[in-house]
Amino acid sequence: MSKLVIVGTVAFDAIETPFGKTDKILGGAATYIGLSASQFQIDAAIVSIVGGDFPQKHLDLITDKNIDISGIEIVKEGKTFFWSGKYHNDMNSRDTLTTELNVLADFNPIVPKDYKDAEIVMLGNLHPIVQLSVIEQMETKPKLVILDTMNFWMDCALDDLHKVISKVDVITINDEEARQLTGEYSLVVAARKIHTMGPKYVVIKKGEHGALLFHDDNVFFAPALPLEEVFDPTGAGDTFAGGFAGYLAKSDDISFENMKNAVIYGSTLASFCVEKFGTERMKKLSSDEVHKRLLQFKQLTQFEIELI
Amino acid sequence: MSKLVIVGTVAFDAIETPFGKTDKILGGAATYIGLSASQFQIDAAIVSIVGGDFPQKHLDLITDKNIDISGIEIVKEGKTFFWSGKYHNDMNSRDTLTTELNVLADFNPIVPKDYKDAEIVMLGNLHPIVQLSVIEQMETKPKLVILDTMNFWMDCALDDLHKVISKVDVITINDEEARQLTGEYSLVVAARKIHTMGPKYVVIKKGEHGALLFHDDNVFFAPALPLEEVFDPTGAGDTFAGGFAGYLAKSDDISFENMKNAVIYGSTLASFCVEKFGTERMKKLSSDEVHKRLLQFKQLTQFEIELI
Repeated sequence: MSKLVIVGTVAFDAIETPFGKTDKILGGAATYIGLSASQFQIDAAIVSIVGGDFPQKHLDLITDKNIDISGIEIVKEGKTFFWSGKYHNDMNSRDTLTTELNVLADFNPIVPKDYKDAEIVMLGNLHPIVQLSVIEQMETKPKLVILDTMNFWMDCALDDLHKVISKVDVITINDEEARQLTGEYSLVVAARKIHTMGPKYVVIKKGEHGALLFHDDNVFFAPALPLEEVFDPTGAGDTFAGGFAGYLAKSDDISFENMKNAVIYGSTLASFCVEKFGTERMKKLSSDEVHKRLLQFKQLTQFEIELI
Repeated sequence: MSKLVIVGTVAFDAIETPFGKTDKILGGAATYIGLSASQFQIDAAIVSIVGGDFPQKHLDLITDKNIDISGIEIVKEGKTFFWSGKYHNDMNSRDTLTTELNVLADFNPIVPKDYKDAEIVMLGNLHPIVQLSVIEQMETKPKLVILDTMNFWMDCALDDLHKVISKVDVITINDEEARQLTGEYSLVVAARKIHTMGPKYVVIKKGEHGALLFHDDNVFFAPALPLEEVFDPTGAGDTFAGGFAGYLAKSDDISFENMKNAVIYGSTLASFCVEKFGTERMKKLSSDEVHKRLLQFKQLTQFEIELI
């Protein structure tokens, strides 16, 4: 088993979908990543920042999942990062209504001493400079550094983004972002270009259309589970990343063959996340439910072909 | 091994993609279906109609693939169905530039006597009344009738379309068409509604995002092979259907488990079709090449997970 350190936002979200809307609820990339990774009962820590308005019960929830929160700085006089958004009817696109950076504007992450030797580092979506700072604080070289990012940083901090990309082993990115980053429409060509930027492994997330894992000339594909209803897509990408990182930490095997399994676990966990608002579904997810759904994934994708 | 009868267009296409354009070349749903199914060296016949302008060499090509053409009516004084279209830069959408029905306007299909006992019937995209007429000509009830159709018939012949849908075992349809036919956005819910219209098996084609096979509460997914370049998508859906039908005819097993393999074969063959203009790639496809690509599909999708 490897130690996992997660950096990312711990935040408030307010979400509106065709099915309803929420007040300020628990959100943030590191929250979703942590909840998802915690399914594997690993030794994990979150590095983040919140304000004095952040309820103790949210911190307790994270602690209850056996995640170390000594790296979550609490700025008593500050306010927690807040995002609100509204999904369109097809659930595939959304408008951001509010982004209040608040304490995140001056976030200076500090990796707890006990986690400076973590074997796996998961860099959730944040300013690339903040992500870089976490890599630099590690005292032993991690076996695997995983980066998640988004188009926003391509628009406004591309040089810094390239710096952090050059230092990671795995990047997770969505299809449109992969196209924007490389100027290539074909995801196969885009992944090859991203390889040359640094990451040996490239995961391209296609939302309801699944995810692709590229490594050299190898490619693996995991579909998203076909669902009757997507209730709230918020956090699905982070939940995917958390499942991916958590599984690798638990199994302590970063071969390409095992990364296939990590992608399947990531897709499986993400398929739960979208069933309820926010983190609701992930808070109360049993390993039995996860195992049942993994079997559904097998039925969905596995076949026994005879060449004729 | 089962006999396969294919009804559909045998036609001229003129295609423009970002990579170039063609003059009038060999096209048509039945052509693509036949070329694809012929990979399985089965006993197949095409039922169609062409004009006196249709070159003998095209007919010879079909015959060389061991496909019976006694059901292709040649109207000496008539002109062959002609379609031309232009693909947009993303290759996912296209504009139809010309549709000249010509001899197709009065197509009255005649199933050759030797194929009125075919176990498998593949109804390529055509007016639903023409498709119905083929079903009615079968002297023994086929083991499997497969229907392909498109949104055009939903717009202008919906009642007839419902009649033919109620009489088939399998429908292949793309995602947007499934949504249009059912008024449901979720493909899971759409497939369930289509089941109630008749077909026990529903195949929803999602182009570059793969294909879903639904049967009762079971679902199977086959991705499209991630390609560096899609040169010309024309005929990919028909090639998929031809591979699906051809494999089932060859293996003589219409269980859901075996239909998974049929979907994989369909996807595999379609991945070749898009590599060159028109039927160019399918004309010269060796079984070695198909086997190699099937292995790529296995590597793309198969995993060995341990529950942890």
